[in-house]
Amino acid sequence: MKVGFIGLGQMGTGIAQNLIKAGHSLVVYNRTRSRAEALQTLGATVAATPAEAARGAEVVMTMLADDHALEAVVFGPEGFLPTLAAGAIHISLSTISVAISRRLLAAHKEQKQHYVSATVFGRPDAADAAKLFVVAAGAAAQIGRCQSLLDAIGQKTFRVGEDPVAANVIKLAGNFMITTVIESLAESFALMRKSGVAPETFLDVMTSSLFNAPIYKTYGPMIASSSFEKVGFALPLGLKDNRLVLAAAEEVAAPMPIASLVHDRFIAAIARGFSNEDWVAFSRGAMSDAGL
Amino acid sequence: MKVGFIGLGQMGTGIAQNLIKAGHSLVVYNRTRSRAEALQTLGATVAATPAEAARGAEVVMTMLADDHALEAVVFGPEGFLPTLAAGAIHISLSTISVAISRRLLAAHKEQKQHYVSATVFGRPDAADAAKLFVVAAGAAAQIGRCQSLLDAIGQKTFRVGEDPVAANVIKLAGNFMITTVIESLAESFALMRKSGVAPETFLDVMTSSLFNAPIYKTYGPMIASSSFEKVGFALPLGLKDNRLVLAAAEEVAAPMPIASLVHDRFIAAIARGFSNEDWVAFSRGAMSDAGL
Amino acid sequence: MKVGFIGLGQMGTGIAQNLIKAGHSLVVYNRTRSRAEALQTLGATVAATPAEAARGAEVVMTMLADDHALEAVVFGPEGFLPTLAAGAIHISLSTISVAISRRLLAAHKEQKQHYVSATVFGRPDAADAAKLFVVAAGAAAQIGRCQSLLDAIGQKTFRVGEDPVAANVIKLAGNFMITTVIESLAESFALMRKSGVAPETFLDVMTSSLFNAPIYKTYGPMIASSSFEKVGFALPLGLKDNRLVLAAAEEVAAPMPIASLVHDRFIAAIARGFSNEDWVAFSRGAMSDAGL
Amino acid sequence: MKVGFIGLGQMGTGIAQNLIKAGHSLVVYNRTRSRAEALQTLGATVAATPAEAARGAEVVMTMLADDHALEAVVFGPEGFLPTLAAGAIHISLSTISVAISRRLLAAHKEQKQHYVSATVFGRPDAADAAKLFVVAAGAAAQIGRCQSLLDAIGQKTFRVGEDPVAANVIKLAGNFMITTVIESLAESFALMRKSGVAPETFLDVMTSSLFNAPIYKTYGPMIASSSFEKVGFALPLGLKDNRLVLAAAEEVAAPMPIASLVHDRFIAAIARGFSNEDWVAFSRGAMSDAGL
Repeated sequence: MKVGFIGLGQMGTGIAQNLIKAGHSLVVYNRTRSRAEALQTLGATVAATPAEAARGAEVVMTMLADDHALEAVVFGPEGFLPTLAAGAIHISLSTISVAISRRLLAAHKEQKQHYVSATVFGRPDAADAAKLFVVAAGAAAQIGRCQSLLDAIGQKTFRVGEDPVAANVIKLAGNFMITTVIESLAESFALMRKSGVAPETFLDVMTSSLFNAPIYKTYGPMIASSSFEKVGFALPLGLKDNRLVLAAAEEVAAPMPIASLVHDRFIAAIARGFSNEDWVAFSRGAMSDAGL
Repeated sequence: MKVGFIGLGQMGTGIAQNLIKAGHSLVVYNRTRSRAEALQTLGATVAATPAEAARGAEVVMTMLADDHALEAVVFGPEGFLPTLAAGAIHISLSTISVAISRRLLAAHKEQKQHYVSATVFGRPDAADAAKLFVVAAGAAAQIGRCQSLLDAIGQKTFRVGEDPVAANVIKLAGNFMITTVIESLAESFALMRKSGVAPETFLDVMTSSLFNAPIYKTYGPMIASSSFEKVGFALPLGLKDNRLVLAAAEEVAAPMPIASLVHDRFIAAIARGFSNEDWVAFSRGAMSDAGL
Repeated sequence: MKVGFIGLGQMGTGIAQNLIKAGHSLVVYNRTRSRAEALQTLGATVAATPAEAARGAEVVMTMLADDHALEAVVFGPEGFLPTLAAGAIHISLSTISVAISRRLLAAHKEQKQHYVSATVFGRPDAADAAKLFVVAAGAAAQIGRCQSLLDAIGQKTFRVGEDPVAANVIKLAGNFMITTVIESLAESFALMRKSGVAPETFLDVMTSSLFNAPIYKTYGPMIASSSFEKVGFALPLGLKDNRLVLAAAEEVAAPMPIASLVHDRFIAAIARGFSNEDWVAFSRGAMSDAGL
Repeated sequence: MKVGFIGLGQMGTGIAQNLIKAGHSLVVYNRTRSRAEALQTLGATVAATPAEAARGAEVVMTMLADDHALEAVVFGPEGFLPTLAAGAIHISLSTISVAISRRLLAAHKEQKQHYVSATVFGRPDAADAAKLFVVAAGAAAQIGRCQSLLDAIGQKTFRVGEDPVAANVIKLAGNFMITTVIESLAESFALMRKSGVAPETFLDVMTSSLFNAPIYKTYGPMIASSSFEKVGFALPLGLKDNRLVLAAAEEVAAPMPIASLVHDRFIAAIARGFSNEDWVAFSRGAMSDAGL
């Protein structure tokens, strides 16, 4: 398929490469042009603007850091809203607010374009390996048209309904779930250390029994060894997602006290100077409170 | 082996049956005698007192509801501390405080008896099916002597060190981890419902991807359908375990804010009249706060 | 002085009346015009737009519900930014975000106008009685020029510095302090009731000893008797202020866990249908959790 | 009156001195005898045991650090339960658990002795100056008999009912209220500092307006200047009281989330090595989380 791809950060680059490998034809755009040019050797064409990346494309995929960046590439002066053909699809992969997802749905509809929300779970290594989990919502026929693209980037696609917003809420709640795992491990490890038990011993029991899931296996060792320097997902982005889930919850009047607690952990991590670390570094809070 | 078995609640009965099936010779004791007599047809002998259950046994296993009950069968007027032979082993399976575990270690040592802490993860159905996860701590040689017993009741034994207390701390932290799963799912489901997404849809995405673990699969559907009437583990016992982890954490000065939050959820569930439900019912708090 | 006054809600009406009584000449504007016309009999002139209210005024005072309303009257198509004379002063009385206060400072400076932030503590009855506490920040000379206005509406003015934002942060933190009083009383009263002690007995001890302050005397009886129908300050506005203090705290990286807790209480109150009550109604949360 | 006085810590010494000054005849006991001997020059008689202090007394007053110490002087081998005359009164001034207060009520009743719970608010300087606030509960006639004693030590007595436990619950909730003031000021001061506003400026506004109460004036400056070295009430005792209010609340099923939050703050303060400071030092938590 002819695909415009916008946003070549850690996640976007891996995804775009997998689309190219699967035989799709990509026109790529990134604000920092050099990251786009790096894909030229693989066969991608570099666009000078988002508008240009979308021209003539059957599908435009966006993978951006936040609402603001996404708004710029869609609605900004060089945005692609006017250049995307009627009948073409915008697949939004980014973790964004429920509010902007609603706005995109309306705007694309007005242009007779289609909008599919296809959020993804997985860190950059999963993006590189085409092992993402994709949560897709939107008109079934349009998701059907895109399925080969989603298959090229992930190990599984979950279709969660006709309303694109569903994919956004699920993504935000999923990231919230991950933060609860991080905080719960951090609190447990603090208890272990101060009780003379190695966190690794506890983690081994957990991940070999009831907690035998990738999420515990991925984050457990990072927290046990306080290894936060290799940044798969930066701490300020983690705070952004926490903010988004709290906003989504406030909008529908559903209190989420663990999300509030994690919010305060993120802020404390920033106050203590850990903005450059991986988001898992908010787990330092539980250690610090225990005098570790 | 000749085994005294004390405590035939939902968990203890399943465990005792599996020991008998594995060919061990059991003398059983339960405060409510009828539950002990129910095992006679399988070949168990019923003892009138804990002291009698331990007489002549190579191993005494205890599976009781709380510290108080355990203290009674060991140190009480009919307790087995004086009747257990020197060189014999007390295997404590119960979820108890760190404090009483230390006291047992000292008391048995004084009597030249051995003390092994072998805590278990799993609900009554896992106990029935000999699928428990066993976390054993104590002198390696003594755990070795008991291994056939532990094999008969569980699917795996983790040996976590020479200090029996390690098994107690790990059990308490493990139960804490379960409460964090329950609360995190409850908060997410409240968000889903109020956003028009079925909790089951969200749960399916989670348990098919990063959260592919038994604990999410066991508790998720219960919370999604608010099914708390079938009591595998009663709510007041859940509060007891929460209290124990908070006490263990306070003793070593490690704050556990999610445990504090869950504490308040348990209290609220009791205040609202849900003491007769399964411990998962504290998840009602997140629903109630969202007006559901 | 010749004063433009914009925003005639419960607070603004009382304030405007006191300014008129003190002999100042008011041109008033309110979105719902009838509330402005009600002041005509006292001698106020009614303006059709914010722009008109400010024309020729030495001072414009604004008392609006939120950032959005304030932005509209200043920067909107009928806003007063272009019509306020150079050298004139905008006194912002509203509880608004730190962010918009900064924006106003810059915008007025560019127009060679002055900007004073003069936030107020007190409920509508205090506004009526000219008993507000005023917290003023901005250029000392300009506050000096306005002092007679501030004296006309309050019992005391605190000058807290040259940076207008200081008055906003203090107001937000002050409102936060009030919420901590409400929540702490609610939790204590729940304990009292369930212990068989009348909340009023406890309140009497407190307010006659160490907690002998207006805030406890004002809110204590409301909470003790669950009287939230008479709305001095609506619950959604309380949530707005809570959001603003959390935003101000996040901006400077200062976690405020009680503010997070109160946030969740507000959301729960809205979810349970109490949006039409006074903001103190979030105290229902503690009662509800205790089964009361 | 002939008074036995037991417990001469910082609070007890001031109280005992004021009783002597008021003309009462004291027989004093303290575990560390030297503190008792220091009162001999004022005319007190030193007893070798609690039992001896109570012999022949019309009233025994106890002011001890915790349940354990109180149990020892009443029920211990040298305790005064057997030596206190029938018809005599035990006035318990200590901050103790609801549970032990109930036990004392029953035990004294059995001995035909009277039990009055008269808890006190105020720090050591207030005890020295006879400015305590006394909260008395018990049989009205017995409180009447003691009134001259209570007048000698405090500025006001509140009679809160016939059930002695009421005075204990009110004392515990009162101390909880103080912790909410400390935490709320700490969070606000952190916000102020990081926003460039002096905490003292904020405190001045608060204590000159709605928060014009001794409690804010006493604790505010200590927190603003981080002065916790002069110990009026030691941090571990503050944690003890926090534990007692949580226990009282759990017993009657009333969740107190701010108490839970403060609990975690106390634990963190201990983990970080501040056990030797005044209890206000738990306010360091909010500062630390803000990177201050």
